[in-house]
Amino acid sequence: MRRLTIWPVTGLPEVRAGDDLASMIVGALATDPLLDHDVVVVAQKVVSKSEGRVVALSTVTPSERAIRMGEEAGKDPRALEVVLRETRSIVRWERGVLIAETHHGFVCANAGVDRSNAGAPDSVVLLPVDPDASAARLRDALRERTGRDVAVLVTDTFGRAWREGHVNVAIGMAGMPALLRYVGQYDPEGYELRVTEIALADEIAGAAEIVMGKLDRCPVAIVRGLGMPSSEHTAQEYVRPKEKDLFR
Amino acid sequence: MRRLTIWPVTGLPEVRAGDDLASMIVGALATDPLLDHDVVVVAQKVVSKSEGRVVALSTVTPSERAIRMGEEAGKDPRALEVVLRETRSIVRWERGVLIAETHHGFVCANAGVDRSNAGAPDSVVLLPVDPDASAARLRDALRERTGRDVAVLVTDTFGRAWREGHVNVAIGMAGMPALLRYVGQYDPEGYELRVTEIALADEIAGAAEIVMGKLDRCPVAIVRGLGMPSSEHTAQEYVRPKEKDLFR
Repeated sequence: MRRLTIWPVTGLPEVRAGDDLASMIVGALATDPLLDHDVVVVAQKVVSKSEGRVVALSTVTPSERAIRMGEEAGKDPRALEVVLRETRSIVRWERGVLIAETHHGFVCANAGVDRSNAGAPDSVVLLPVDPDASAARLRDALRERTGRDVAVLVTDTFGRAWREGHVNVAIGMAGMPALLRYVGQYDPEGYELRVTEIALADEIAGAAEIVMGKLDRCPVAIVRGLGMPSSEHTAQEYVRPKEKDLFR
Repeated sequence: MRRLTIWPVTGLPEVRAGDDLASMIVGALATDPLLDHDVVVVAQKVVSKSEGRVVALSTVTPSERAIRMGEEAGKDPRALEVVLRETRSIVRWERGVLIAETHHGFVCANAGVDRSNAGAPDSVVLLPVDPDASAARLRDALRERTGRDVAVLVTDTFGRAWREGHVNVAIGMAGMPALLRYVGQYDPEGYELRVTEIALADEIAGAAEIVMGKLDRCPVAIVRGLGMPSSEHTAQEYVRPKEKDLFR
């Protein structure tokens, strides 16, 4: 019987550019070491910080477009300029809300640029340049330090169409499947299953968020018991091409 | 430190109309009884079956609209007729995919009507008429039989805009919050938190799905360790009114 256990990794120090996240996580886990096939879920913000993806707004010169949008919405044009630089295309700009497709292909508010918990005044944190690569590097570093073959998810909390509330999702991953495919499988009456792909890594990201919280500076959680052999996938498998998307 | 444990309830018999789900769950849990504040996550399908929300297609006379749509998409007009009856408004009808707003306000494929695992040939299963009431009834029945104050989620797997893959979400609930609100809370630098509402029950529904699976007829899971006092909420809190929704 499959039994999942999920707990937060507490006691991590504040993360700064250049920090070795793997060592910090291994250190914080001292009394409860990683096992093979654990999933290490890490909030995007600490990955971004360790990679120096923090921008001081005083260094940003807003474009005319950002100035115009800032006037429209009563928002800081320098922050909007950073958002526009992270944006591949604007999906919605209405009522002061900017829903953007990022250069990675994710659709989210402000292209993932966020001002809270930046660790520095008047600064914003961007998503990692390549969150899958970030996850793969962290996975390799954890294996080097512990000898364990774990999966890693880099996550962020995204809003949704139609439903209130944000959920944590995987924006980068290494070592486990993004999607569980039921294509071509049949129920006992012989009908092909309607739900053909379960977004497993997103569901794990959400499960980890429950113990991570937002305020308590707990950006890492461990999920144990998935019992899944390691496999190579990326969060790009979640990106629905625009031409297949009924809602863009 | 918060530690969540999640496991499937195995050995439940096939559920039929009129079955007492609470007794079936309590029976299946015999060696691992419920505790106060456990969350009992139940797949919509068994709730619907116990409530008799199964329709034999042989009893359905399709409307002209359903016949026309069936011809357009090469689909069974009787099944489309049932979907249309469960639909408050059609959000998209393209390429044979029907995304509908249900009478409850949920936006999902085929208004939640599903042919797989119906338990009878040529039949479809509908969502419960009032999934919050279903959850509340099950919660009361579980309390009566065990003396425990648990929360109950009734869940279904929904597709999403922009992202591939389905996730399990709460369509009915009792005894716990739908949303965790961070409105008016500040990070250590004094910035108000961007993510102001976490869809907690949806994240728990997704976490439970990981152990429930689709094929193994395991429609119930227990989530323990949330450590949250009981409170009265409904899954209607997830319904974003159309006039607030940028994607309808």
